[in-house]
Amino acid sequence: MSAGGEAIAESRGAEGMLHCVGNGFAPVLRHHLARLGAPDGLPVLICGMAGARQGWREAPYLKTPTRLEALHEGAIRVDAPGDIRILPGIAQARADRPDVMRGEETQLLGVTEPDFTGLVCIPGTHSKWIGIEQGHVVEFSTYMTGELFSVVSQHSILAHAVEKDSPSAVDSGPFREGFAAALASPSGLTASLFRLRASQLLGFEQRADGAARLSGLLIGTEIADVLHRYGVASLRLIGAGPLGRLYEAALKAQDFDVAAVDAEEASRLGLAKAAINIWGAQF
Amino acid sequence: MSAGGEAIAESRGAEGMLHCVGNGFAPVLRHHLARLGAPDGLPVLICGMAGARQGWREAPYLKTPTRLEALHEGAIRVDAPGDIRILPGIAQARADRPDVMRGEETQLLGVTEPDFTGLVCIPGTHSKWIGIEQGHVVEFSTYMTGELFSVVSQHSILAHAVEKDSPSAVDSGPFREGFAAALASPSGLTASLFRLRASQLLGFEQRADGAARLSGLLIGTEIADVLHRYGVASLRLIGAGPLGRLYEAALKAQDFDVAAVDAEEASRLGLAKAAINIWGAQF
Repeated sequence: MSAGGEAIAESRGAEGMLHCVGNGFAPVLRHHLARLGAPDGLPVLICGMAGARQGWREAPYLKTPTRLEALHEGAIRVDAPGDIRILPGIAQARADRPDVMRGEETQLLGVTEPDFTGLVCIPGTHSKWIGIEQGHVVEFSTYMTGELFSVVSQHSILAHAVEKDSPSAVDSGPFREGFAAALASPSGLTASLFRLRASQLLGFEQRADGAARLSGLLIGTEIADVLHRYGVASLRLIGAGPLGRLYEAALKAQDFDVAAVDAEEASRLGLAKAAINIWGAQF
Repeated sequence: MSAGGEAIAESRGAEGMLHCVGNGFAPVLRHHLARLGAPDGLPVLICGMAGARQGWREAPYLKTPTRLEALHEGAIRVDAPGDIRILPGIAQARADRPDVMRGEETQLLGVTEPDFTGLVCIPGTHSKWIGIEQGHVVEFSTYMTGELFSVVSQHSILAHAVEKDSPSAVDSGPFREGFAAALASPSGLTASLFRLRASQLLGFEQRADGAARLSGLLIGTEIADVLHRYGVASLRLIGAGPLGRLYEAALKAQDFDVAAVDAEEASRLGLAKAAINIWGAQF
């Protein structure tokens, strides 16, 4: 990357946590650096699960409230040739609302100014809503929205009601109905899930619409809780692709003032900011 | 059974739907009748999933509102020697609240008088709450409480937070805390599930307490929605064993007036009432 956060060259891979834990993190990194033709000793900055306890080397969580501009101070160096560092995650170490993030803190750094105050939403497997005051992460909540979609549609009776491998992020009629049902009855999720199945048994809905309705119910429940906690707010949405657009449309329909940012762009900008803070603008 | 609904002789088996669909329902019934030494031509009355479309023979759903005393009128005869009938389920064929039951209607018949008015709760894999007026099932809701416990604790990241095969129905401190958290924030289930994991990562709770907390969150969310829909009510609770007692204690703590009935007893009484209605008191 350039110091401005622009990608100069890029290498992507499908090596996830399981692969890296089994085969070692260093060889995976070396492989990608070689593909990029990177010079020896190029400084490397990493964010996300590589810093988890079961990752490459643990980068202990910073605790809320924590200043995003100081994220780099929590970076740890790995025991390998060159200068390779892993950024820390952030923990909300409160017994009443314990929560953790790894990777999203870097995106937050990327999309906020040092004095930013407001709400940020990062939809996904574990959707995150983050309250930021004057550049400090003060509190956040994680919703298991995406993971519940996957688990319930594969392993519960809803496997009969949701077509396999159907896209979850479709802004269709059934999505909007599921979303509206969840907003109207935010405590009723566990009954709405059964009704999704019953609706098809009784001929009110087709299986082809099951995925969109399930997605609407789950995202609607998440946003109903957010509305309950924060009310309508202006927010930054970090999300690319169909899921990001789905959240954007759904939030705007609830009168949220949404500024959307691409998720990869957010990660790159955050890494660049932290890199400059560590190595200076000439890295 | 005697006409009074008492068991004279009993044979139990583990043959579920999959077994019966694969091997035939008739041989399973013949096997159990033989074990009981039942005379040829003994009338047989069946309730539950044998009457589903994918069962022995479909006994089409009665539609709400429907009178429980007339349940037997919807029974269908199977094409086999002797007089073997299957009781129908009940469907709530409303596009806004579609729902179905098979088996529970027989329990409802068993535990209600012909002019009964009130609420009945049947906890389980698919917990059911049924509103009855003057002996008619007028509306009901099914909550996927038990199935979500099983699916989420086995297939989501909560598999790391819930010990395998741990009993879900334990009236412990973590159960009560989960239950109270759900009542305080009934729209927040999908975030509470993630916090259960985060709480253990951050050392606030032990894995040994994960099952009870998960159970508290899910049952609490169900009862929060019931409170929202009906308010505090007097009700009959059809449930045996630890799960029934857990619901009874939790509901009483919310000032519900609870009369508990054993679930098997409810099924036997319902079958006996329907049998008398079909064959007369001398069957």
